[in-house]
Amino acid sequence: MEAYLDNSATTPLCQKAKERMVSSIENNWGNPSSLHEKGIQADTLLKDARKQLAALLSCNEKEVFFTSGGTEGNNLAVFGAAYQHKRKGNRVITSAVEHPSIQKAFDRLAEDGFEVIRIPTDSKGLIDLKKLENAINDKTILVSIMAVNNEVGTIEPIEEIARIVKRKNSPALIHVDAVQAFGKIPLTPKKWGIDLMTVSSHKIHGPKGVGGIFIKEGTKLRPVAVGGGQEKDIRPGTEPMPAIAGFFGAMEELKIKESLAKLTENRDYLVAELEKRDSVVINSPNDALPYIVNFSLRGLRSETVLNLLSDMEIYISSGSACSKGHKSPVLTAMNLPDDIIDSSIRVSMSRFTAKEHLDYLLTGIDTALKVIRKK
Amino acid sequence: MEAYLDNSATTPLCQKAKERMVSSIENNWGNPSSLHEKGIQADTLLKDARKQLAALLSCNEKEVFFTSGGTEGNNLAVFGAAYQHKRKGNRVITSAVEHPSIQKAFDRLAEDGFEVIRIPTDSKGLIDLKKLENAINDKTILVSIMAVNNEVGTIEPIEEIARIVKRKNSPALIHVDAVQAFGKIPLTPKKWGIDLMTVSSHKIHGPKGVGGIFIKEGTKLRPVAVGGGQEKDIRPGTEPMPAIAGFFGAMEELKIKESLAKLTENRDYLVAELEKRDSVVINSPNDALPYIVNFSLRGLRSETVLNLLSDMEIYISSGSACSKGHKSPVLTAMNLPDDIIDSSIRVSMSRFTAKEHLDYLLTGIDTALKVIRKK
Repeated sequence: MEAYLDNSATTPLCQKAKERMVSSIENNWGNPSSLHEKGIQADTLLKDARKQLAALLSCNEKEVFFTSGGTEGNNLAVFGAAYQHKRKGNRVITSAVEHPSIQKAFDRLAEDGFEVIRIPTDSKGLIDLKKLENAINDKTILVSIMAVNNEVGTIEPIEEIARIVKRKNSPALIHVDAVQAFGKIPLTPKKWGIDLMTVSSHKIHGPKGVGGIFIKEGTKLRPVAVGGGQEKDIRPGTEPMPAIAGFFGAMEELKIKESLAKLTENRDYLVAELEKRDSVVINSPNDALPYIVNFSLRGLRSETVLNLLSDMEIYISSGSACSKGHKSPVLTAMNLPDDIIDSSIRVSMSRFTAKEHLDYLLTGIDTALKVIRKK
Repeated sequence: MEAYLDNSATTPLCQKAKERMVSSIENNWGNPSSLHEKGIQADTLLKDARKQLAALLSCNEKEVFFTSGGTEGNNLAVFGAAYQHKRKGNRVITSAVEHPSIQKAFDRLAEDGFEVIRIPTDSKGLIDLKKLENAINDKTILVSIMAVNNEVGTIEPIEEIARIVKRKNSPALIHVDAVQAFGKIPLTPKKWGIDLMTVSSHKIHGPKGVGGIFIKEGTKLRPVAVGGGQEKDIRPGTEPMPAIAGFFGAMEELKIKESLAKLTENRDYLVAELEKRDSVVINSPNDALPYIVNFSLRGLRSETVLNLLSDMEIYISSGSACSKGHKSPVLTAMNLPDDIIDSSIRVSMSRFTAKEHLDYLLTGIDTALKVIRKK
């Protein structure tokens, strides 16, 4: 038996993603910029993929652009907004629990003279809306808050955040890192009143190496990359067609509502079982995205558990794959005690996760509790 | 019959590239940053691919990094060098015949206050070495010259250029855009004495969406992207593993010397046949990379020929795919007359190009000459 429960790090490709990708590799490998038939075929596939992404985000095809992934999308949103609009003001706001591709982008803005404000969160990982409201002034040009936290699954109230920004009458663009939310909950950036949103393919059973960015019509950004004009100069460079084809297939196969219902059952079952064990502390809030369950096995270091479970072909994570070897900045920002952070484990499920995978995980955890405690 | 002769725009995947890519999609889809077995498997593949790239560039594995492609690599080299070393000087040098991902990067440096010098070329596309030498001073921090021109195939004397830069005792880093040269002629950046070199996968029968950059050990760059630490923070973001796997396969299948000999025969045959036709003018120099033959069909607009040939399943390009619809800046820099530029065609071959493809192209050209002239 094998249980892959690290779907927030990456996912295996789903059937439709594989099919479209292999078909692109075999038969539709042209350069979409080429003017001949091979180029036109590739460009048609690119257009179809763009339509699919726009449909999922309830926006216009002109408002979505393909990127090389979540990091590039997040960088483009933050740098693109800040450098384009720096004449309007100097203040940029984010939260203390963002992905490194946001945190470090704000570090760089700070180096470059911007006034960076990072809004703290409560113990559930929810950002402090009062502090956010107080931080926004008429010199604030960017507010970037994630939709779903990658380590604990906390869902931030994006629509409310957008209302707060508007209420303060600031020129701020609102960016949402929706990499962990995309394909899992409905995303409606235009209805929410936000300007920029980043998504990625490889968290939804598509390939790595491709993502998307929503840019509300009329929003001006200074692109990070410059080159041959692809993606309307928002992200030049020959489009990664086999990856875009795979991303397209992954989007086609999504069933957001059905999956959410299934995952809620999965999560409730797993949490109930975990809570029967004395040494378990659940770190994810009750109303988190049910795909992610973060918990601690008090007294066991997470790396030790991770290795033991890996030997049993159970794959989980200690925090996010992107902060490999470092103490989780998210759990730190949530003010959790050190022993809880050091023993934290992230189980991240997908729509392919079955009850038997969770039962096998529980067996693994019980083994870990016995074996490691004996040492 | 079909003749794909637009290999400088993009190439179909070769067998080994397909195999490695499909195998990665099916069986090795983990996140190389994950600490468990699925991550380790992916990381092993990543390391093997890196070894292969380093071997091809006769350098150390620590000196090569994967990127999302040629544009990203070129941007990273130019921006990374200029912004990192701006305290040492303000002058940056390139040529008038570079790819848009270099030209526009220098445009941006000019906007940001750098003194940009673009060295002109002669009618063969060779940059003026005397002017280059005169332009280099002790405030010059970057010289970026391409190895092989993408539109006409001109091979620039990189080793000599590196000697000139060294002789002038300037602190300049030397970058070479080797996207069109990689896999076609041996590249030895360390022996040549250069600091940075960009390569791409999809011009050598690998997938789009991945490339590489050589960074000589000890060279400091300010990365363009920031995030989760992948590629030693030179290019963070989850590695595009299926594309890297395909790139790996494409590199394994290369036979640089044999292919070069075959392509030289192909080129000589094609040029000899073309020269039998009155209205043909060859724009590529005799000693260009034999993969590329640029010529003009006097009196016929290149788009018209391109469309007619496309209907015959002969795929060529009017200039580069990256300057779609624009007058070729390369042929303009080479000072060719307008009628030659407007009727220019680029045939770009690969090691899979056979004599029968060239014969079919010649049939197509003769048809074009008849059909279009009749109108």
